[in-house]
Amino acid sequence: MKAVRFDAWKTRPTLVDVERPVPGPGEVLLKVAGSGACHSDVALYAIFEEAIAMPQLRPAYVLGHEVTGWVEEAGPGVVGMERGDAYMVYAARGCGHCSSCSRGEDTLCVNVASMTHLGSGLGLDGGMAEYMTVPVRNLVPLEGADPIAAAPLVDAGLTAYHAVKLALPKLAAGGRTALVIGLGGVGQLAVQLLRQMSAATVLATDLKPEACDLAARRGAVIVDGGEDQAARIRELTGGRGVDAVFDLVGTAETMQLAQAVVAVRGRITVVGLAGGRTDWGFYTTPFEAEIMGTYMGTLEELHELSALYRAGRLEVYVTPCSLDQAMDAYGRLEAGTMLGRAVVVPHPDAAGVAVEGASQAEPATV
Amino acid sequence: MKAVRFDAWKTRPTLVDVERPVPGPGEVLLKVAGSGACHSDVALYAIFEEAIAMPQLRPAYVLGHEVTGWVEEAGPGVVGMERGDAYMVYAARGCGHCSSCSRGEDTLCVNVASMTHLGSGLGLDGGMAEYMTVPVRNLVPLEGADPIAAAPLVDAGLTAYHAVKLALPKLAAGGRTALVIGLGGVGQLAVQLLRQMSAATVLATDLKPEACDLAARRGAVIVDGGEDQAARIRELTGGRGVDAVFDLVGTAETMQLAQAVVAVRGRITVVGLAGGRTDWGFYTTPFEAEIMGTYMGTLEELHELSALYRAGRLEVYVTPCSLDQAMDAYGRLEAGTMLGRAVVVPHPDAAGVAVEGASQAEPATV
Amino acid sequence: MKAVRFDAWKTRPTLVDVERPVPGPGEVLLKVAGSGACHSDVALYAIFEEAIAMPQLRPAYVLGHEVTGWVEEAGPGVVGMERGDAYMVYAARGCGHCSSCSRGEDTLCVNVASMTHLGSGLGLDGGMAEYMTVPVRNLVPLEGADPIAAAPLVDAGLTAYHAVKLALPKLAAGGRTALVIGLGGVGQLAVQLLRQMSAATVLATDLKPEACDLAARRGAVIVDGGEDQAARIRELTGGRGVDAVFDLVGTAETMQLAQAVVAVRGRITVVGLAGGRTDWGFYTTPFEAEIMGTYMGTLEELHELSALYRAGRLEVYVTPCSLDQAMDAYGRLEAGTMLGRAVVVPHPDAAGVAVEGASQAEPATV
Amino acid sequence: MKAVRFDAWKTRPTLVDVERPVPGPGEVLLKVAGSGACHSDVALYAIFEEAIAMPQLRPAYVLGHEVTGWVEEAGPGVVGMERGDAYMVYAARGCGHCSSCSRGEDTLCVNVASMTHLGSGLGLDGGMAEYMTVPVRNLVPLEGADPIAAAPLVDAGLTAYHAVKLALPKLAAGGRTALVIGLGGVGQLAVQLLRQMSAATVLATDLKPEACDLAARRGAVIVDGGEDQAARIRELTGGRGVDAVFDLVGTAETMQLAQAVVAVRGRITVVGLAGGRTDWGFYTTPFEAEIMGTYMGTLEELHELSALYRAGRLEVYVTPCSLDQAMDAYGRLEAGTMLGRAVVVPHPDAAGVAVEGASQAEPATV
Repeated sequence: MKAVRFDAWKTRPTLVDVERPVPGPGEVLLKVAGSGACHSDVALYAIFEEAIAMPQLRPAYVLGHEVTGWVEEAGPGVVGMERGDAYMVYAARGCGHCSSCSRGEDTLCVNVASMTHLGSGLGLDGGMAEYMTVPVRNLVPLEGADPIAAAPLVDAGLTAYHAVKLALPKLAAGGRTALVIGLGGVGQLAVQLLRQMSAATVLATDLKPEACDLAARRGAVIVDGGEDQAARIRELTGGRGVDAVFDLVGTAETMQLAQAVVAVRGRITVVGLAGGRTDWGFYTTPFEAEIMGTYMGTLEELHELSALYRAGRLEVYVTPCSLDQAMDAYGRLEAGTMLGRAVVVPHPDAAGVAVEGASQAEPATV
Repeated sequence: MKAVRFDAWKTRPTLVDVERPVPGPGEVLLKVAGSGACHSDVALYAIFEEAIAMPQLRPAYVLGHEVTGWVEEAGPGVVGMERGDAYMVYAARGCGHCSSCSRGEDTLCVNVASMTHLGSGLGLDGGMAEYMTVPVRNLVPLEGADPIAAAPLVDAGLTAYHAVKLALPKLAAGGRTALVIGLGGVGQLAVQLLRQMSAATVLATDLKPEACDLAARRGAVIVDGGEDQAARIRELTGGRGVDAVFDLVGTAETMQLAQAVVAVRGRITVVGLAGGRTDWGFYTTPFEAEIMGTYMGTLEELHELSALYRAGRLEVYVTPCSLDQAMDAYGRLEAGTMLGRAVVVPHPDAAGVAVEGASQAEPATV
Repeated sequence: MKAVRFDAWKTRPTLVDVERPVPGPGEVLLKVAGSGACHSDVALYAIFEEAIAMPQLRPAYVLGHEVTGWVEEAGPGVVGMERGDAYMVYAARGCGHCSSCSRGEDTLCVNVASMTHLGSGLGLDGGMAEYMTVPVRNLVPLEGADPIAAAPLVDAGLTAYHAVKLALPKLAAGGRTALVIGLGGVGQLAVQLLRQMSAATVLATDLKPEACDLAARRGAVIVDGGEDQAARIRELTGGRGVDAVFDLVGTAETMQLAQAVVAVRGRITVVGLAGGRTDWGFYTTPFEAEIMGTYMGTLEELHELSALYRAGRLEVYVTPCSLDQAMDAYGRLEAGTMLGRAVVVPHPDAAGVAVEGASQAEPATV
Repeated sequence: MKAVRFDAWKTRPTLVDVERPVPGPGEVLLKVAGSGACHSDVALYAIFEEAIAMPQLRPAYVLGHEVTGWVEEAGPGVVGMERGDAYMVYAARGCGHCSSCSRGEDTLCVNVASMTHLGSGLGLDGGMAEYMTVPVRNLVPLEGADPIAAAPLVDAGLTAYHAVKLALPKLAAGGRTALVIGLGGVGQLAVQLLRQMSAATVLATDLKPEACDLAARRGAVIVDGGEDQAARIRELTGGRGVDAVFDLVGTAETMQLAQAVVAVRGRITVVGLAGGRTDWGFYTTPFEAEIMGTYMGTLEELHELSALYRAGRLEVYVTPCSLDQAMDAYGRLEAGTMLGRAVVVPHPDAAGVAVEGASQAEPATV
């Protein structure tokens, strides 16, 4: 079968022919429906190298950690999986027997230092291929929902969901306000989730007007940038400040904006990985406001997110492309000319998706 | 000034002339905007008597515990109250120095047994009058929002809000379901609050088709009554059951329906005071499902509910009537011919409300 | 190897020779250290039959669901397990891919109806044998702590821990009170856990004076039975009532005692399986008190409980006996003459335990 | 009566004769039992000045914000207060009608900017006097417990309690660890509260050996300072890190230690007001660890803390002195020669306390 394999640091992956994997005990062979092309893949092959990368990410393996697919074959001992049923793949894969893994939070695996991978497509073979094998535990049912648009939910969506869910106690009352800084894929989903899961007024800001327009259509109140932005945000909250700020950028500037607008006893959640730093002290933020980062999410949360998606509560725009076009898609990611999220569809007929027209597709934004 | 005073058990209140009260230290004189006529008032004067009533409710006093108004005059030591500003009145009035009162939950006052009242209009003079005095602490700002429609929020609205807020942790995830049994005033607000404050699918049921229609317009999925109702509800949840059931009736039948449909680890909240009983045992409900009653709400919750109302998130239909018509309104409540919530408006001109046409008003339902 | 196998309903298990199991992929072969003889096993073979038992419990299989052991051999693909290391076995075994299993709560498996077992020793071969196989995920490290006394923690301990942990928010403040009704194995552990994990005053009651004495030594305030018991309990709480009642009996009488003493906004947790029923209505319990049952616990909770045990925070008394004596131990359970918890020790030398003297052992109570 | 009045910035307070206050409506006249001399008082009169101090703290007023006393006389409308009963005084005094004040959290009063005081002894006359008046709502019952040792609980104790209570969810499981940095008055109470309210292992560190010894006697595991301190702390947690760090110092160094040892998903609570800053970024602390400051506590929390104290669960050492000695006590605070907490006792006979021997008292540490 064809697969996009990452073979060496600082080297572009290539489309190669590999053996179709065979599902072991407790595993399922998945016919890949959609596989999202993610910016972090570009970091993996273009930026990282032995000296700075986590050893768990060392090549070679098939890329693809935002994967959906149909059950093709069940391995020994697997019960309750019907051929053709659609699933999302929870990508993170911890040791499987520590306390974090015991609650389905492989992302925080206690034994990560002794692991040789972080997950499928992240040290283990992923889904940028015709088929992949997955432990049955990592499958989350999609039922009749579109598996192509679902692909970005596995990573971008789960990241937004986890950050929002942890902050919900700050928003679970009348008169609360949230602020989303950065309206790319994760930010657009955060806006939708906040509007669905709380009665908070959702403020949002981004440098790109079209991203702001899309968020506005999804119910956000857009706050333009500029010098007095923090003051204008405070005013929109009646002076109280923002109960939950989500910083999906993570520069010093965005974190300082967050500190300037957060409410007494509010929460700043930094999700963006730009690596900025900010000064924190007792007097730098309002009383009892907290700041924390969040990272991906849990297996159970992917079940919960899937339920929202299956109920038609989330809008996700994707640009499908064929497996042959996968490296073109990554090229556009590298060049910054990709609009929205490219999802590789190895079996366009089975998916009922026209991938030839992908380049003429509607400008799409997750 | 004119006031509707409750003078003796088993005796209809009468419209009488009384002295306008004078605000004491820490109090405000409120010019009443709206005062809801509540079923519990009817119970107070028509059903209760010395032997069965709580001694705190003993007459004589002015009725009216769902009150909004404008600041007319501030008592000694009161700061920060502007004449003409609109407020809701938190009716419950505890001892003021126990641990429950310390957190603004006068409804659960530890010293209730030694109190001579439960609240304004409930042992103390209430707002079915031209003016009333209120401790400044009990005032909740309405800002520019309509004070007439706000009156029922003080009791019916707060009751719904408190029940929903306590149950929110059960609904704070994707794929959750709520069920509202009984779509009168409290139920209609519960439907709206659940839709606003969570992503749960909101099921609802009532015997009256028009109440169901209104809830459906507000986003509820209506489940008709009938023999296999529990089975149909379970099916709507994909077999999981309902995560949060709100029983606003409280008969044996509605509680048994709740037990039949609640999910594993779900919650049944009984708010309705019909006084029914049900059998509870380890095996009568799904694993780890809980049952509890809730009662009114806290002062802080009224602040939160007011914020939702001020933001235009809640729809409340009321039928305004004049102070002279107050006992007619109670009469219609007694006869069961009142559509929606009657709100007595002692100063129609100030309120900008036409009360003469009240009897021809649109059929209104909270 | 020798094993105690349950072969048919209404038939005592027998000690038989069976093949030593071979660990499959993802499994570990465990050399059994201790295997608790539990009352529920007696119900399984002496009381249940096809018509009334859950089909998942149908024989034949090796008994033993309270098991600890040492790693003897790791199956294919298992990493990070050292031969000789001691572990507890989380007995519950769900479908492995539903949302409950995803968070390590196999006890609430969504697909239980289609399962052919509930767990090891409960439909699957358990640990009343020299060896057993266990999925690596179900192992919880004991490190240097005594594995024999640890056996009852797997079921009785986890049941107490789960009930206490869920109720902790009711006790997480100064001035709170807990009440433990029933001081058998689960109750004694509940008393210890409450004393360790909260600042609550722990009241306790039981019919047996020696059980009360043991609880008193562990910091409980004993309340004798008798007619005015509820009044005396209320008095001990300064009239407030009990914030968290744990009913480990579950008869109508104990549940009614719980309802009579619970505080406003308190919680009644029914763990005991006596099958009693009680009347529940809005007015039968104080305002906003809740009642619920709890069942076993989660895999992560067993990790947490193990940490407490390893830190020397829990005292567990057991009576060790050999595999040959296992059916004698069950006989004493049937006859009601077993003092404390019998733990079968198939390898007394490895365990460093003298099992001959078991019958002369110190009167022991978990 | 005699009172210690603060009359001007940068000027030591003086013992003056003033009128005994008269309790207004809703107030009580308290005969002062104990009044703690607090470091923040020294900051008030010796360090602050018009340009830098909060305007709410502007003199002149009687000092004393850690006060206990006996009811001497009830003002108009006050019910349920018996002459001679002992109470603590919740010092914070907000606007009384915002949402924060509505839940008894005057410390976070929304309208603080328009207030002319922060609390009693902080802009309003406090308890460094023979008598003071207090709104009945701010009184917290002491019942039979010693009111002299209780004085520091009102501020130092409440600060520790609030910080610990907010962090309890991080500690509500087996295998958790807490760390207290700084073992002065607040730190000693934090150690005791953590030991009482959780099963966490409590680590503690301070530069003063005698403070460490006292904490060790109260159940803390002492970690000496020095270069590899963070590594040694991590080792004590089995590598997991600390689930809840309490930094009662608040320098850059202590905050950096906290960041170095906190666990994945742990919490750093900064209480100390040394004004240090630290660098915060996504990669500076373990995944999902949060940092926040906390400030004093709520009225309800003082009720809860009082319950723990009344139950004999807290040990507080104080050095009593007379009102005449008050400025000497402040002098020793200024000089850094005060051992433990000085509590001014204006009525030594009523308190049953010998104040003459104060200077020869046992070296005392809160």
